[in-house]
Formats: sequence, C-alpha cells, structure tokens
Amino acid sequence: MPVDRKSLFKRVPSGIPGFDDLIEGGFPENTTVLVAGGTGTGKTTFAAQFIYRGAELYDDPGVFVTLEERAKDIRREVKSFGWDFKKYEDEGKIVIIDGVSSSVGLPSEEKFALEDKFNVDNFLRYVYRVVKSINAKRLVIDSIPSLAFRLAEERQIREVLLKLNTILLEMGVTTVLTTEAPAPQEGRISRYGIEEYIARGVVLLDLQERNIELKRYLLIRKMRETKHSMRKYPFEITSDGIVVYPSGEIY
Amino acid sequence: MPVDRKSLFKRVPSGIPGFDDLIEGGFPENTTVLVAGGTGTGKTTFAAQFIYRGAELYDDPGVFVTLEERAKDIRREVKSFGWDFKKYEDEGKIVIIDGVSSSVGLPSEEKFALEDKFNVDNFLRYVYRVVKSINAKRLVIDSIPSLAFRLAEERQIREVLLKLNTILLEMGVTTVLTTEAPAPQEGRISRYGIEEYIARGVVLLDLQERNIELKRYLLIRKMRETKHSMRKYPFEITSDGIVVYPSGEIY
Amino acid sequence: MPVDRKSLFKRVPSGIPGFDDLIEGGFPENTTVLVAGGTGTGKTTFAAQFIYRGAELYDDPGVFVTLEERAKDIRREVKSFGWDFKKYEDEGKIVIIDGVSSSVGLPSEEKFALEDKFNVDNFLRYVYRVVKSINAKRLVIDSIPSLAFRLAEERQIREVLLKLNTILLEMGVTTVLTTEAPAPQEGRISRYGIEEYIARGVVLLDLQERNIELKRYLLIRKMRETKHSMRKYPFEITSDGIVVYPSGEIY
Amino acid sequence: MPVDRKSLFKRVPSGIPGFDDLIEGGFPENTTVLVAGGTGTGKTTFAAQFIYRGAELYDDPGVFVTLEERAKDIRREVKSFGWDFKKYEDEGKIVIIDGVSSSVGLPSEEKFALEDKFNVDNFLRYVYRVVKSINAKRLVIDSIPSLAFRLAEERQIREVLLKLNTILLEMGVTTVLTTEAPAPQEGRISRYGIEEYIARGVVLLDLQERNIELKRYLLIRKMRETKHSMRKYPFEITSDGIVVYPSGEIY
Amino acid sequence: MPVDRKSLFKRVPSGIPGFDDLIEGGFPENTTVLVAGGTGTGKTTFAAQFIYRGAELYDDPGVFVTLEERAKDIRREVKSFGWDFKKYEDEGKIVIIDGVSSSVGLPSEEKFALEDKFNVDNFLRYVYRVVKSINAKRLVIDSIPSLAFRLAEERQIREVLLKLNTILLEMGVTTVLTTEAPAPQEGRISRYGIEEYIARGVVLLDLQERNIELKRYLLIRKMRETKHSMRKYPFEITSDGIVVYPSGEIY
Amino acid sequence: MPVDRKSLFKRVPSGIPGFDDLIEGGFPENTTVLVAGGTGTGKTTFAAQFIYRGAELYDDPGVFVTLEERAKDIRREVKSFGWDFKKYEDEGKIVIIDGVSSSVGLPSEEKFALEDKFNVDNFLRYVYRVVKSINAKRLVIDSIPSLAFRLAEERQIREVLLKLNTILLEMGVTTVLTTEAPAPQEGRISRYGIEEYIARGVVLLDLQERNIELKRYLLIRKMRETKHSMRKYPFEITSDGIVVYPSGEIY
Repeated sequence: MPVDRKSLFKRVPSGIPGFDDLIEGGFPENTTVLVAGGTGTGKTTFAAQFIYRGAELYDDPGVFVTLEERAKDIRREVKSFGWDFKKYEDEGKIVIIDGVSSSVGLPSEEKFALEDKFNVDNFLRYVYRVVKSINAKRLVIDSIPSLAFRLAEERQIREVLLKLNTILLEMGVTTVLTTEAPAPQEGRISRYGIEEYIARGVVLLDLQERNIELKRYLLIRKMRETKHSMRKYPFEITSDGIVVYPSGEIY
Repeated sequence: MPVDRKSLFKRVPSGIPGFDDLIEGGFPENTTVLVAGGTGTGKTTFAAQFIYRGAELYDDPGVFVTLEERAKDIRREVKSFGWDFKKYEDEGKIVIIDGVSSSVGLPSEEKFALEDKFNVDNFLRYVYRVVKSINAKRLVIDSIPSLAFRLAEERQIREVLLKLNTILLEMGVTTVLTTEAPAPQEGRISRYGIEEYIARGVVLLDLQERNIELKRYLLIRKMRETKHSMRKYPFEITSDGIVVYPSGEIY
Repeated sequence: MPVDRKSLFKRVPSGIPGFDDLIEGGFPENTTVLVAGGTGTGKTTFAAQFIYRGAELYDDPGVFVTLEERAKDIRREVKSFGWDFKKYEDEGKIVIIDGVSSSVGLPSEEKFALEDKFNVDNFLRYVYRVVKSINAKRLVIDSIPSLAFRLAEERQIREVLLKLNTILLEMGVTTVLTTEAPAPQEGRISRYGIEEYIARGVVLLDLQERNIELKRYLLIRKMRETKHSMRKYPFEITSDGIVVYPSGEIY
Repeated sequence: MPVDRKSLFKRVPSGIPGFDDLIEGGFPENTTVLVAGGTGTGKTTFAAQFIYRGAELYDDPGVFVTLEERAKDIRREVKSFGWDFKKYEDEGKIVIIDGVSSSVGLPSEEKFALEDKFNVDNFLRYVYRVVKSINAKRLVIDSIPSLAFRLAEERQIREVLLKLNTILLEMGVTTVLTTEAPAPQEGRISRYGIEEYIARGVVLLDLQERNIELKRYLLIRKMRETKHSMRKYPFEITSDGIVVYPSGEIY
Repeated sequence: MPVDRKSLFKRVPSGIPGFDDLIEGGFPENTTVLVAGGTGTGKTTFAAQFIYRGAELYDDPGVFVTLEERAKDIRREVKSFGWDFKKYEDEGKIVIIDGVSSSVGLPSEEKFALEDKFNVDNFLRYVYRVVKSINAKRLVIDSIPSLAFRLAEERQIREVLLKLNTILLEMGVTTVLTTEAPAPQEGRISRYGIEEYIARGVVLLDLQERNIELKRYLLIRKMRETKHSMRKYPFEITSDGIVVYPSGEIY
Repeated sequence: MPVDRKSLFKRVPSGIPGFDDLIEGGFPENTTVLVAGGTGTGKTTFAAQFIYRGAELYDDPGVFVTLEERAKDIRREVKSFGWDFKKYEDEGKIVIIDGVSSSVGLPSEEKFALEDKFNVDNFLRYVYRVVKSINAKRLVIDSIPSLAFRLAEERQIREVLLKLNTILLEMGVTTVLTTEAPAPQEGRISRYGIEEYIARGVVLLDLQERNIELKRYLLIRKMRETKHSMRKYPFEITSDGIVVYPSGEIY
C-alpha cells in the first residue's frame, strides 16, 4: 500500500536549484551522500553550495572539512558566486576546518585547523567535536582521495571509511563526501571501490563531449528512501553556483 | 523422457510480481541465489521484498542480515513501499540482524545484533542460531562486499564464502546473497569472482542507457533445476516494491 | 596421402545429440577435453550428459567428481532431464564423488566422498582408485575453479593441473574438465590460462545477445585427431538435455 | 548575486596568445596549474613561454626547473622561437635550475644547478631559496615524471608532491607543473593520479588524428576562481611559440 | 645497390605449400622462428609439418621436442595427415623428445625422453646432445608456455629463453618455437613478451570471425633477411596438413 | 621574432630518403632519438641505415651496439640492402659491438664484444671507450628491451636509462635508441614508460591494416629544436633500405 513519503522522511534541501525537485525535496535527513566525478566536474562547488545555502536559506549550521584547498582559497573562490562564507563563520553558522595547512606542516592562520601530524583518530575526533560544538546539521568532507593521500598507505582508506561511517551515524548530520569517479560509464563510480558502501546516496557528476565541447551532466545513481529518476540531467556552473535543469534535454 | 518438473522440486516464491513466472513459480527450495548488480540497481529492495512477502504472503519466517545499513534504516526505508517489518518482527516471523552498529563499534539498540568485534566464526554461528531459533525458511545476507570489508584482508572472503556455503547447506534455508557485479556485459558478474560458485542461482540486475535515461533490467543467468529463459526483462521499483514485466519489451 | 581417419582413432561419443556429428563421431578415446564457459552456460549439464548417456547408451562406466554442488543436488537436478543417476549408481556403472560436503567440513551421506581435509595428493589418489575400481571409461571433474578455491593459494592450481594431467594420462579415461572462460571473444578461454595446455580438446560454451535475449552457442576451438569446423553452432538445453544444431544458423 | 570577478582575483597572464582570453585574463595569482599531455604535445614549450613572456612582457621574475633537458638545451631550443633566455638570466629576471647534470653525476657548468646526489628535501629547499632570491613570481617544474624517476621508488612521488604543495603555498608564486596524461579521453589525466589534487588548475594538451594528421588541441579541465569553457581549442606551435585559437573550429 | 638475395642467404623450406612462396623460398638458414597463435590455431601442426616435410622432401634430420603432448599422441595425431613419423624415427632422421611423461613423473616408453625431474640446464643439454647426435638441421620446441609451466616460477622463462637462445645460436639449426599470442590484433604477440626478442622471424596464426565461422589466417610479422609482404593470408588444415593460399582473398 | 633555424642548429642527416625532409634536414646534432615500434616494424633497419649512410654519405664514424642479433647476423642481413658494413669496419669508420655472444656465455669471434658477464657499468664504460676511440658521431643501441632482459630485474632499466642518459650527454654523439611501442594508438609509446624521457626525439614506426594488409607508417611524435609535422607518413622497406614518402597519402 503506497504511503505518503513526504511525511515519512524529513528532507534536507541541497540548496541547488533544480536538484531538489529530483529527490522529493532534498536528501533524506541523516543520510551520507557521495558526490563522485572527475577533475573539474564541480564536486567542490556542489559541496560548498550545500553548506552555504544550508546556512543562508535553511538556517542549518554546517561544517566544511577541506583537505584539498586551504580554507582561505575556498572562501576566495566561492566569492565569485557571491557567497560570503566569512559572514556565517562569524555568526557561528559555518565552520571551515582547514585540513591542508597542518597536513603539509605549515602553521594555519585558521581558527579551525587539524593538528600538526595527520592522525586518523584525531581527525575523526576533531570533526566530531566541531560538529557537536555548533550543533551542525550539515557536513562536507572534500575529498576522500585527499584523505587517503595523507595515510601511510592509500589502502588504509578502507579502514578509515568504516570508522568514518561510525561517527557519521552517531552525529546525525547529513553529509556530502566527494570522491573521484574514474570511469562512471563503465560502472567504476568511486576511486577506492568502497566509498559507495558507506553512502546511502550516490550522485555522479560527469562530462560528455558534444561537438568538441564537454557538457556537464548529473545522475542520481542511488538515493535511499527516495523515488528518483535514473535520467541524466544537464547542469551548469553559473555565477550563482550550480543549477540543474530537471526538464532539460541533455544539450 | 520429460518429467513433471513442478512435482519434482518444491518452489519458494520470491514475492516479486512477474519474477516467479520466469522461474517455474519460485526459487528451488533450499537454493542459494546470488543477486548481483551495481550501485543503485535495487539489490537491497529485491532482498527485503523476498523476506517481507515471504512472511506476509507465504507465512515463511525469514532472517535479514544487514551489513550495509542499520536495521532501523532498512525498516524506515521499506516503509515507503508500505512494508511494516516491525509487525512481523514482533510476531517473531522476521528477524533483522544488525551487522552495522557493532562492526563500527557502536552499541546497538537492536535485539539481534552482531557482537562487538567482527569475527567470522562468531558471525556464522550467530546467523545459524537465529535461523534455527525462528525456524527460518528464508535468509538474506546484504551484502558480500560489506562482509569482505570487515575482514582483515579482503581476499579472505574466499574462505568465508566456502564456510558460509557449509552452513547454508546445513540450515536448509533458501538464501539471497547480494553482491556487486562490476561489468556484467563483459562477463564479470561478481566482485570477488567466487560468489557465483557457491550459488545455485544467479540473478543480474543491471542498468542500460536508453535516451539519456538508465533503464532497469533483470537477467536470470543461472537457476539450477529450473527452466528459465535467457532474456532480459524490464523491471521497475514502484511504490509497492519491485515489479518485473515478463512479457515486456525492454523499453 | 589422406587416410581413413575413422579407423585410425577410436571415438567416444559425447551422448549429446548433434555434437558428435561435429567431431567425427565422438571425442578421440583417451583425450582430455576442456569445456569452458561463463556462469549458466551449461557446463555442468554437458558434463553430466556425457557421463549419463555414456552409461545408458554405450555401457561405459563413468565417474563424476562434483566440487561445486553436492552429489544429491546433481542427482535431483538432472532428474528434470529424466536422467536417473541413482539407477546406474546402484548398478555400479556411475559413481558420483562428493567433493563438496567434506571440503566444507560436513559429514557426507555419500558412499563416495572426499576425506575431511582437502589435500591434493589424496584427492588425486582417491579419484584414481575409484576410476580403477569400476574400470571407468569416462571421467568428469566439475570444476577447475572449485578445485582451485580449495587450495591454500589459487595459483597452486598450476601444479595441481600438471599432476592431474599425469594421472589422466595413466588412467586411460576420456575426461571432461569444466572451467570458466572469462572472455572467450578476446581469446581468454580459461580462468587460469593453463587448463587448455593439459587438454587435447577445447569446447567453448558461450552466450550472445540477440534481440535482448542471450542465445547459447558452442564452438569447438581445438580437437586433436579430429577434423572439425570452426563454426559457432547454436544449442539449447531442452527437457532431454543439451541438443546441438549442426546445420543451424545461429538464431 | 554575481560579483565583479576581475576585481576579486588578480590574474597572471600566461603569455600565450589566445589562451588568456579563455581564462578571464590569466591564471589566478598564486595558483598551481598542471599542464598535462603526452609526448610531443608541447608541455615544455608551454612552460617556457610562461616564464619567458612573464619576464619580457610583464616584468615578472621567473624560475624554470628543468629535470628532463639540460639548461643549455632549453636555451638553445627556445631560440628557435626567438626567445633569448640568456638575456633575462643576465638581468636576474630568469633563473634556469639545471636538474639534469647533477642528477646524472656530471658537473654542471650552470650557475644554478642541483647538488650531486638527488635528495628531495635539498631539492625543495634549493628551489625555495632561488625563488626567494630573485623574488620570483612564476615557477615551472618540468616535469613530475622526471622528478619521480630520481626517487628510489616511483611511488614516493606521492609524498614529494604533498611536500611540494607546501612550499608552493608558502612561496606565493604562480606555478606550472608539467606531467604526463596517459589517456585523457578515458579520464586518466595524470601519470600518478595525484598531481591534479595539488593543482588548482588543469590544462590538457592532446593530439587527435584527423585525416592522417595529429592535430593539437587544448582543454581547460579545471581552473579555480575562473569561469572557463569546457571546449577543446586548437593550438599550434608557431615560430613565435604556442598560439591558441579561441574562436577556431577544431580543424 | 640491389643484390641477388637468393644467392646471399640459404633457405630452409618450411614444407608448407604456399608458405615458402611468401618468404623467398624458405626460412633463412639458422634462424629461430616464432610461431604464435591462440588455442587451436594450428601451431603444433605447423611445427610437425616443418619437421616431417623436412625429413621427407629435403632429407633434413629434425628434432621435435614435445612438452604439451606425449610423443605417442603426436605420432598418432599426425597420422591423420598421412605422416608416418615412426618410419623416419626408425631411420634416425627424426627424433621426438618426450617432455611430457617425465615431467609428470611417469616412466616414458620413449627412447628419447627428458629425465625425471625437470631441470633447465639438463633440458638444454639434452636437446643439444640429441640435435648433435643426428646432426639435425631442424628443431621444434612445442611450446614455450609448457616449458614455463615446468619452472618453479613462470617468470623464470625470461632467463630460460636467453639461455635457449645461446644454444640455438651455437647449434646452427633452423628452429620453430611455438607460443601463445594472447591478442595479436592489439600487438601482444607472445605470452611472455620476450619470445619475439630471441626470434629472427615471427609468424602469427590467428582466427577471425566471418559469418559465425572462425577463419584461419597467417601473417608474417617479421622475417630477417627476407622480403615478405605484410598481408594476411588465409590457410586451411587439410587432410595433407597446412596449406597457405598466397594469392587468396581472406575468405 | 622568427630566426634562421638552419643556422641555429647543426643537423645530422638520417640517411633515410624522404625522412630528412620532414625534420629540417636531419636530427639536431647531439640529440638522442627514440625509434619505437612493434615487432617487425623496421626499427633495426632504421638504425642500421642511420649508421651505414652516415659512414657512406657523410663520413661520420658510427657505433652500432647490437643486443638482439649477433654482429654477423646484422652484417649478413643488411647485405640484402647492398650495405657492406665490413668495408667500413675495416676502415675504422663503423664498429659493431656484439652484445649477444657474451651475454649468452659464448665466446665471440668479434673484435668488439661485451665481456663475459653482463654488468651495467662495464657496458656503459665499454660503449663510451669505443665511441671515443673512433671519435664516433653516431651511436645506435638496439634495443632497450634486450638491455632490460639482461638485468637481474627488468625494472632496473629505469636506473640504467638514467645512467645511459649521462654518458650520451657527455659523449656528444647523435644517438638512435630502439624500443618497443606496445600500443602507440593509445599513447603507450615505449615499453618501460621512461625511454621517451631521456630522448629529445621520438619517431614511431607502426603498422595499420588496410584491406587485409598491414601498411607501414612513420610518425614524428617529438623532435626538439625542429619544426616537424604531426602527419603519418607511409614508408617502405625497399631493396635499398627504408624510404619515406613525405608527400604520399597513407596508401
């Protein structure tokens, strides 16, 4: 017997125009979503928009863990979309955890930064504490490969992801993890082949060549508790951030 | 000389509309069936439907071992299909064994949960005991890769599967194992290349792109004691669960 | 100068309608033939038919070593083709060696079963003794991968196959070995890349998609002492077992 | 709300005609850009032009670390484009660090050369010192694979790149790193699969066969803080160096 | 200035009708030729014909080292082509060295057989002695992979082939080595990637599908001191052995 | 500002008709050029022609290091092109260093031959001494894989090539190195993936199938200090050696 799905599951809007229409209004609350794609597909922008619009439009506190770019680079970069992270950071609504400076042995000018020597347990504990301290509803870890590079051996990422899974379940946040998708068309949708097992949702960002131009599209490969289509939707990175065209032909 | 097959082999209906028509009424009793597919192909839904409809329509006690999602996530998720696992759990007809909480070191609120530290022999013993305690006719293990991730080394999965095979033979249940099929078109139908050797049936769930949309189809690759076609059948995940279209063109 | 081939080589009919026409009446006596194919291509049925029809039509004693399925599953399964193994087992014409129960540590109810702990030399010795005891003319080992899984390391299969080759040469039986062919179109016709070196004949069973249906075909890739075509022949698994269509178009 | 991007980010013109039009006037200051391509795609020319035009047209001091060719070969080679490195070297505007002679155990006639035995920390320190000594605004390391070959084990390149990332962040230069792109069409855009993680921009140089001729094209795969198209642009290596055709059809 | 090639190089006719026309009358004397192909492409027949016709038509003593099949199987098999090896063996013109029986630990009934335990140096020494004893002009080793399987580790084949190369150079015979070509179309023309380096000629035997039938063709990929075409020539295995059609279309 | 390239760089004509037109008259002096191709593509002929025509037409002393074929085989083979190496060897204009005999443990009849046991440093020293002794302007090493096979572990070739690079830089010769190109179309243009990094020029020799015939073509993939096209040019191996058709369509 069909039921009223909306009432069943609380939704966390992604803040990405057009995208929430595809997933019954937003991610299921408390879900970990993998955003996978190649270089330059827009993963970091997707993740930053999720945090920023969360704070701006839904009053959701959010934590952005950046392991590829310095916090200040992220801040500067998203300004081009007109997003002022600093403002919400000052209000305690957004925290950016700088995972770059420390990991390369540099002193961080950031308030929130990982400690000197990268250590998995410390890392997870620190993220946990920060999330709790602002009662965050949203979390981003950008990216899984950058996390893996910091380990003594890349394949330890398996163990780290299982541990990460634990604290994600415990914290009750809705999380976006970014990772590399080496060959989405051939079914390889994550770099380490395990990321999708700790995620209840998988969103693929990909590029397809049409007339000597690479076009962006997005595919919801999995989203638990959500009726979603399996179509590829075109999207663009506009001056307002990512916009998905749910009714659009793929170029 | 042809014989009356129906009388030869007892059948265990899958509970999936349209599917049982393809396999002479159901799985051969006592058979282990591998349900293989990529991310988001519907493996968990297939497995949950097998257990739920078994209890609801055929009065078969069933055990669902969940290693990817917490028991409560499974329960919540299938509610969107109108399936009330809780009701049958209270009646002792369905047991969900929570293999997630413990394996990540969290206390489980579940009545049936794996112990603290993952240990293969304990795991198999525990499943065996629970199956016997409710005299289960149906068993699901979701999923093989999630089981493998819990091992010290993934390739130990070979040994685990051989042991699992033993207790499956002994318990007399009809079992659905889910696993990943990295590239079904190229003949790689299981992640570890051994799962299909302990299964007497193999069902592939796959996605094919047609007009920028991924379409779902199902293929019975092997089913011992069963005359089945080798066609690809379209299926959908509706608000009532999976429905297969045995007479349907593939979109 | 051409010679009368028929008189040169004794033939062992496969018992598969249509197939023997393709190989001058049957396998060359004393030959080891590899039957290779993917999951669900009919390898076990081919092998069982070779043993059963051998006993039924040609009065040849035969031994079937089953490493994937229990003896009783094999018996039950082939009943759907109207084949009554039990009858010939009682007459001492067919022996099924149960290699499953023991290898998983279960007591076997079978008269012929491998010992507790899998050991290559014991295995080979046991097969040798059973073959001699009924003076078997035909032997099946189903399958090579299942044999490999029982070894401490899969790659020991190389050594095992070389040893197996020895006793096959000594026993004087005509043998069918089944193995997996990962990608026959690309020339990879055996899982371990060595099986074809101990076999004097190689028969490929494959599936090809035509109009959303997988069609079965068979190709004799190698058959020493035999003039055979290199065409792909369609075959079906009917209620009487495998039937090959030597004059048939491939669907 | 859109903002005036030009005022937000300072731009460092590449000095490559046509190319700067594609990236809002130049690389974002302080950015590390990966120039990836196969053998003979023009990576070294791209990098040398970036340094030379920087000195000539924008008065930017620049450092070129050459690990594939000797300094004198670079100097001689670019003369064919009419570029006189020596002149700017004498003025202290350009430094070429010779990383070839020393690494092969030869005495270098160069003023700036790496020490006898290749050592990662010494290498990074030396580059740092030279950059600081001329207050360089531009840096080239040509190439990552040549760096990797000098390590005891190639896979140590991961650690080296993370360390390199640190000093690049600290030095405040705009950097071009060259690397090999084994199969850009299939998404493998760097030899070690990590180079793109320390770069905020990725430019692919590739060759495509059209009418038995390989044509050159360029694709900006990623450029942080920059609105860029995803088209493939044709380019040529003319007697003045690289010229990109932003309005051009791809041949 | 062109020279009279025929007078320059002595030729060793292959004994394969049509083939010698393609290589200026025969293999250059003293050359090692690799015959590479997949299972069932006719490598062993090619090699046996080279030895047999050599004895029959050119009075050349020849040695055939068989590592895949027993000497008696070879003898029996070629009888179907009307070739009577026994006759020439009795005359001391042909020797078959049985490398199968001993290597599997069986006593050989053969006059020429390898010793009990496979040992590379003994093997090479034995072949050398036999070649010298009958003053053989032709030698076959069938096959390289079978030789490799006898080694403790397959990759020792590299060292063995280099040693083999030595004695081949010293013995002054014209040699045919057979090996597996996993994917000739993709340029992988030998199993171990080294066989072609010790051979001065490479002949590929391949199968191509045309209208559901595999057709045989032959390609001379390399032949030192020989002007040869790079066409693919059809060939057949007739009741007289291999026949190549130099003027033939490929089916 | 364009410059007169001819006056800038001294050219070393290859001696291959048609080819020098493609590279502004010849290789840049002092350059190492990699000639890469599969089996039978003409690499050795290319290299021998470079040495022979160098001596004959340009009075350049040359050294040919042969690691695949014995010196006498090379001599005999090129005679079919009318090239008399012996004559120039007697005049001290050409030296062939025999790297085969010694490496296989045979005494060499050659004046110039490597010592008994292959040793990298001795090898490089020996080549260096011979080059200096005749004041060679041209050097060939045929081939890199044959060099690698002589090492205890093939992957040591990386270190050897870096050392080789050193002495090539020091000796001031123009060098042709031959190597295997496993899949030039897919961008894999050298067997070990490092050869192209020590070469300032890369010439690919390849075969393409047209109408059941393999056609030869040549592509200059890289040539420092040289304006060259990226077209594929047809070439043939005629009775005078290699001839390239710069104006020719590719068949």
